[in-house]
Amino acid sequence: MADWQVVTGGITAPKGFKAAGIAAGLKPSGVKDLTLIISETEAIAAGVFTTSQVRAACVDYCRQRLQEKASAKAIMCNAGQANAATGEQGWQDAILSAELLAQELNISPNAILLASTGVIGQRIKMDALQAAIPQLVASASVEGGKDAAKSIMTTDLVPKEIALETTIEDRPVRIGGIAKGSGMIHPNMATMLSFITCDAAVATHLWQDMLKRAVDKSFNQITVDGDTSTNDTVIALANGESRTTAITEMNKNAQKLEAMLTEVCQYLAKAIARDGEGATCLIEVQVTGASDRKAASVVAKTIAGSSLVKSAVFGRDPNWGRIAAAAGRAGVNFHQDELQIKLGDLVLMENGQPLEFDRQVASNYLKQAAAGAYLKDDTVLISVCIGNGSGTSTAWGCDLTYKYVEINAEYTT
Amino acid sequence: MADWQVVTGGITAPKGFKAAGIAAGLKPSGVKDLTLIISETEAIAAGVFTTSQVRAACVDYCRQRLQEKASAKAIMCNAGQANAATGEQGWQDAILSAELLAQELNISPNAILLASTGVIGQRIKMDALQAAIPQLVASASVEGGKDAAKSIMTTDLVPKEIALETTIEDRPVRIGGIAKGSGMIHPNMATMLSFITCDAAVATHLWQDMLKRAVDKSFNQITVDGDTSTNDTVIALANGESRTTAITEMNKNAQKLEAMLTEVCQYLAKAIARDGEGATCLIEVQVTGASDRKAASVVAKTIAGSSLVKSAVFGRDPNWGRIAAAAGRAGVNFHQDELQIKLGDLVLMENGQPLEFDRQVASNYLKQAAAGAYLKDDTVLISVCIGNGSGTSTAWGCDLTYKYVEINAEYTT
Repeated sequence: MADWQVVTGGITAPKGFKAAGIAAGLKPSGVKDLTLIISETEAIAAGVFTTSQVRAACVDYCRQRLQEKASAKAIMCNAGQANAATGEQGWQDAILSAELLAQELNISPNAILLASTGVIGQRIKMDALQAAIPQLVASASVEGGKDAAKSIMTTDLVPKEIALETTIEDRPVRIGGIAKGSGMIHPNMATMLSFITCDAAVATHLWQDMLKRAVDKSFNQITVDGDTSTNDTVIALANGESRTTAITEMNKNAQKLEAMLTEVCQYLAKAIARDGEGATCLIEVQVTGASDRKAASVVAKTIAGSSLVKSAVFGRDPNWGRIAAAAGRAGVNFHQDELQIKLGDLVLMENGQPLEFDRQVASNYLKQAAAGAYLKDDTVLISVCIGNGSGTSTAWGCDLTYKYVEINAEYTT
Repeated sequence: MADWQVVTGGITAPKGFKAAGIAAGLKPSGVKDLTLIISETEAIAAGVFTTSQVRAACVDYCRQRLQEKASAKAIMCNAGQANAATGEQGWQDAILSAELLAQELNISPNAILLASTGVIGQRIKMDALQAAIPQLVASASVEGGKDAAKSIMTTDLVPKEIALETTIEDRPVRIGGIAKGSGMIHPNMATMLSFITCDAAVATHLWQDMLKRAVDKSFNQITVDGDTSTNDTVIALANGESRTTAITEMNKNAQKLEAMLTEVCQYLAKAIARDGEGATCLIEVQVTGASDRKAASVVAKTIAGSSLVKSAVFGRDPNWGRIAAAAGRAGVNFHQDELQIKLGDLVLMENGQPLEFDRQVASNYLKQAAAGAYLKDDTVLISVCIGNGSGTSTAWGCDLTYKYVEINAEYTT
């Protein structure tokens, strides 16, 4: 059983964090587009970033900052301009952004981390940013979590936030998180972003390792369209304000904290997949029986990312052949006569051969699962067993719809 | 300059080959669904097959046959049932199919190769097949190339065939080819198939090596939806009927033959991509400057397979940011400040930074290229240079349209 409960407040639920989201005029539409997250005290900071060879200036900036010093007091994120493929000038803009915020907060620029999301090739509107920073800092509050969740959005349909609470040494410890992303949206509204706050006291190297593992089981397991962005960023701050004893080794408390961190990441990752461009439902693919977790993960992501599987789910078509074919081409060795495929609880294929099943019943499962009848959310569950190994992994995706093509084929000048 | 000319006749253009395509009642629609290609004399046979872990019985059958003996007299291909995921019974059906045809042709079953395309999980309708074999054999003729090209089709919109002729020792030498494929089509009309005939005299090991290299530069460089099928097969026969001296080493004549074989494969591969489900145009991605061909190939295929790039081309949107992002996530190392991106002759990005360009002019290029104004066929050319290396590669794909989703989300009972 889960050792935590959901609490309100999102990113500002953990002690000692404030946030703000304001309209700074970076986006032409005039919506909220500038976000700030502040920790009252310097927090341990961990980050996981895009592996793309084409990276935004803020990604290189954060990687460098965190290498020098794995702590931070504030994260600022602008929407509207990705500041990717902007060369030396983009790099100077990133440095200046941090300096301007540092000045206003009266702290060192080294304590600031940055993120951007928006159009690739466009620099941040520095004049608008500079003018907005005083108001941004002034409006930061412990009630600001919701504003922060909104102001990082681009074409997301819904804000994505969560906060969980557990108990360590009889004291409440919380993790809050926000995220954005629903594809790499036209015109290049790049990016999956997530910011996580925590008031536990934890050693730097443990926190970075925990984040890496949690991201591997969550954000790295979602696929909307297979396109990794130039700006993908997950930053997690832990400021110790819960006043629990510092966790310095992988003991029971550490495991508890990591489990809760993983849950926060998975909740946000699933929220991103569900909000995938044009999607009508979330697809969860559970793979078991692989030689190891890595092999299971590759198969799960290949199935979740298959255009044919995604189209079939949109058509509410129990097309197990496409699932088998996607598993087969994933690049992972298995014996096809050991393959089992299930849709919800319905076994469609066993020992590599199709079973007699009622297509109407299976299609009804898809219709009802997509409508949220079974799991109380709109999740279609595909389970695939590829052998006797102990490797398991879960991946998440969404169906492929006319709307996806419409969103991404739209030509805007 | 190309050292060959196009001739008519397709798969039966080379000397000593006959073909047939008849309606055997395997498909409910009553269209042509059974194909035969015969060489008068035993031909050298080379094959390249799907690398999927889930494979059709015919694929395992051909691999085994070719390992025993790299020659054949006939290829039979059924459409309608893929005979994949059909277990031991499917294997027995494949063996029986070869025996029935061998009996009718009065040759050894070991001289027969098989292919299937159709619904995964369905066995071949053996009664219909058996009843049709006499008519199939009787109707084989040197004029049968066109029928063969038609009878291997599933949801392909157009038949795909070509024949080229060159001169070796002052004698005409020909290669003919047919292919099918336009995605893995609902309900699992699996497969890319290609059959190639040649009347050159060539040593077995050279022919297999030539085919492997030609496939790597053609069929392995196309992507419609990223879904590899359970039945993918390329078989090439060479029967020596041109009566030229046998090619036994990689001399000038061998190079000439391989260049022509590669051209046949590339023509058919491009025809498949252009006929991609729902596609309105062919996308050609040329990558240069990579460390080696393999690295260039990965980048080219990643760009050609990106849903976002494909959607942008459908929208006639010169969205270079998506091309840069796809290149960046391909898993190949390069310096982003060396990236150059061109659409046709228009340079959109240089030294990793966007250039000022007229979006309307670039969009017009896409519109006109897709309509066939530049290259006399409907090809959109994307050129990407990622550095100073000598590695180059070309990949082909097609745009992503509403129609693709419609075709693949269609629910048929």
